[in-house]
Amino acid sequence: MARLVMKFGGTSVADVERIRNVARHVKREYDAGHEVAVVVSAMAGKTNEMVGWCREAAPLHDAREYDTVVAAGEQITSGLLAMTLEAMGVTARSWQGWQLPILTSNAHGSARILNVNGGELIKRFKERNEVAVLSGFQGIHKETGRITTLGRGGSDTSAVAIAAAIQADRCDIYTDVDGVYTTDPRVVPRARRLERIAFEEMLELASQGAKVLQVRSVELGTVHNVRIFVRSSFDRPEDIDPYASHPPGTLICDEEEIVEQQVVTGIAFSKDEAQISIRRVRDKPGVAAAIFGPLADASINVDMIVQNVSADGATTDITFTVPASDYDRAREVLKAAHDQIGYDRIDGASDVAKVSVIGIGMRSHVGVAAEAFSALAERGINIRAITTSEIKFSVLIDAAYTELAVRTLHTLYGLDK
Amino acid sequence: MARLVMKFGGTSVADVERIRNVARHVKREYDAGHEVAVVVSAMAGKTNEMVGWCREAAPLHDAREYDTVVAAGEQITSGLLAMTLEAMGVTARSWQGWQLPILTSNAHGSARILNVNGGELIKRFKERNEVAVLSGFQGIHKETGRITTLGRGGSDTSAVAIAAAIQADRCDIYTDVDGVYTTDPRVVPRARRLERIAFEEMLELASQGAKVLQVRSVELGTVHNVRIFVRSSFDRPEDIDPYASHPPGTLICDEEEIVEQQVVTGIAFSKDEAQISIRRVRDKPGVAAAIFGPLADASINVDMIVQNVSADGATTDITFTVPASDYDRAREVLKAAHDQIGYDRIDGASDVAKVSVIGIGMRSHVGVAAEAFSALAERGINIRAITTSEIKFSVLIDAAYTELAVRTLHTLYGLDK
Repeated sequence: MARLVMKFGGTSVADVERIRNVARHVKREYDAGHEVAVVVSAMAGKTNEMVGWCREAAPLHDAREYDTVVAAGEQITSGLLAMTLEAMGVTARSWQGWQLPILTSNAHGSARILNVNGGELIKRFKERNEVAVLSGFQGIHKETGRITTLGRGGSDTSAVAIAAAIQADRCDIYTDVDGVYTTDPRVVPRARRLERIAFEEMLELASQGAKVLQVRSVELGTVHNVRIFVRSSFDRPEDIDPYASHPPGTLICDEEEIVEQQVVTGIAFSKDEAQISIRRVRDKPGVAAAIFGPLADASINVDMIVQNVSADGATTDITFTVPASDYDRAREVLKAAHDQIGYDRIDGASDVAKVSVIGIGMRSHVGVAAEAFSALAERGINIRAITTSEIKFSVLIDAAYTELAVRTLHTLYGLDK
Repeated sequence: MARLVMKFGGTSVADVERIRNVARHVKREYDAGHEVAVVVSAMAGKTNEMVGWCREAAPLHDAREYDTVVAAGEQITSGLLAMTLEAMGVTARSWQGWQLPILTSNAHGSARILNVNGGELIKRFKERNEVAVLSGFQGIHKETGRITTLGRGGSDTSAVAIAAAIQADRCDIYTDVDGVYTTDPRVVPRARRLERIAFEEMLELASQGAKVLQVRSVELGTVHNVRIFVRSSFDRPEDIDPYASHPPGTLICDEEEIVEQQVVTGIAFSKDEAQISIRRVRDKPGVAAAIFGPLADASINVDMIVQNVSADGATTDITFTVPASDYDRAREVLKAAHDQIGYDRIDGASDVAKVSVIGIGMRSHVGVAAEAFSALAERGINIRAITTSEIKFSVLIDAAYTELAVRTLHTLYGLDK
């Protein structure tokens, strides 16, 4: 007997027929004797419909009222799933964020979960054998008593936070892919599904463009050591063996649970990058703040930052990347700040890509990045910039070479199936 | 300066443009210096959509989950209206039933309001000049903490209960008619809008088929002496003078507020009636229970009941009406109970109509009903049965004569405009 959280996203609950399919997944685990908490999103399309109404009502709308409106989507799904389960003979009840409660910060629209009270759920597992059906994405602010939401994709985070609160053995994220791959299978057909991946690796993969899970859910899993299992929502419930120790999917877990650790686990890439280089910046304290402060004020998200040691002791070049859609705006912000920063000129390119190689094994292996640089050079791929961290290195290259670079590195590190 | 509740139904908030129109109505009263609480329904069609999902999910669904699902409709509207008001410069916030709270009984799907806490609203009127935007139709059960709903049309009841809780000077019900008429204007073009009507009269009118207001809202208004003002939601906000002492509409109030009391205030009618007569029922204690018990068990709503004093001292005839749609079922129930009841035969007709004449003035005037009987006889309309109460009498006639009877009585009692 295990205690499980099962999370289903919007496409899995898009209509009543699919909600019934979700209920069959839940019944499978329930019938196998597991204690189950289900976390659901709004029916696909419903959140967009409600967001559309908010925009139409007031372009600059009150974020508290926005949260009140959009949280209704998850409320509907949780009620529908609970009644479907009841009709199948599974004892169940729905829980809204304010009922549990799931306490959050006051940052409406992108609130952070502060505390989840799981006591009542555990009590009901024991006393009533009752499945808990929880609305994802939403919570309540303790002082104001108002409904909050966690931002897009927040239901993943809800699921992991609830799993932590009830000390679940596993948090199953049912999604439209059947696990986490060594890289995007659409680019590299020989990409393999990973059986396991360490939290830290998944964090890098998730923030480097793999869209499987919301980054914050992985952060929470890391902090609370919640084993997250990514699996397919398309599998037919009746085809799954609830007693199998290894159902198909990817387990995100502590690195100690991963016996045969590869040096490189996966390769992420992002093509929506633009590179900006500021030439002959005066090399003095405060210059980085003078550059990145105005960009932050303009809500431009800066990613890779490369600053080399000054050659002449007086000036240096600083290179960084921004989302391609912010390229023009970022250049304008920097031009306006020319006098505060002090520089010769701005270079840049909006057709660049970032390729990242990720693996906890890099910690104990030397020369991993060097192999990549040779392999890319052999293929004639020029590296514009390099950044490294303990378990990852990233290279910035011309976007046209993205697929070639990813395939080259995928083969190089033995990831092909 | 007055304290007002303003209630808007589903068609008034059917889309964002109409919600904006509602906001202009609210702003008009707010700008005039009034303290305002607004009660809203779900956007037209949304409740039906959600009810459809519930039926699809489980034909016999859990009423608690049903309430969770459908209450989302009002939540959406209240958030949208609050943000629209804010965008117009009106301080506002939305309130769900559980936030206030509005405590109800545990009868999910048709809960009764037990208590409304209006203290926080009054505090915010005074301290922040804030408009309260409340979700109608919903509440919370104190012990279970679960969302309840009041049943169809429940937002009228919410509005009156909130008006009582905050001691509002008036509860304005904005609806698709511009007031309460002496009778249905589609049948009698000369029907007049009543400027005022007493609570008791409105109760009779509402339960006799006038669909303007939910009956329970009028009951609540009677008990708590909440003045209810029925007015049109189609009037353009800018055409209404918020300082007018008599805006167009009908005020439902204590009879003492009505100076020039008419003998007859209005005429209601219902064509969806069927008559059942049980012939030669044994006239002994318990026979009425033997008849109406099985009908109640079958959820058949019995209305007019006429039992005459027995002529032979041994048997009597009992006549009553049921909704036309229950006619066949009611006869079957009675046939099945033949041995318990004991009767000769059952007669009946499914093409009958009930016409009711209502007026508080009847209390102090004699012969009011007799005038009607003469007038109907002159027109050749046969009366099948008669019932009377202190402020009302009803006649059962052939359905084909309904319009003629209503028009005849409308003229007879001086109600034509």
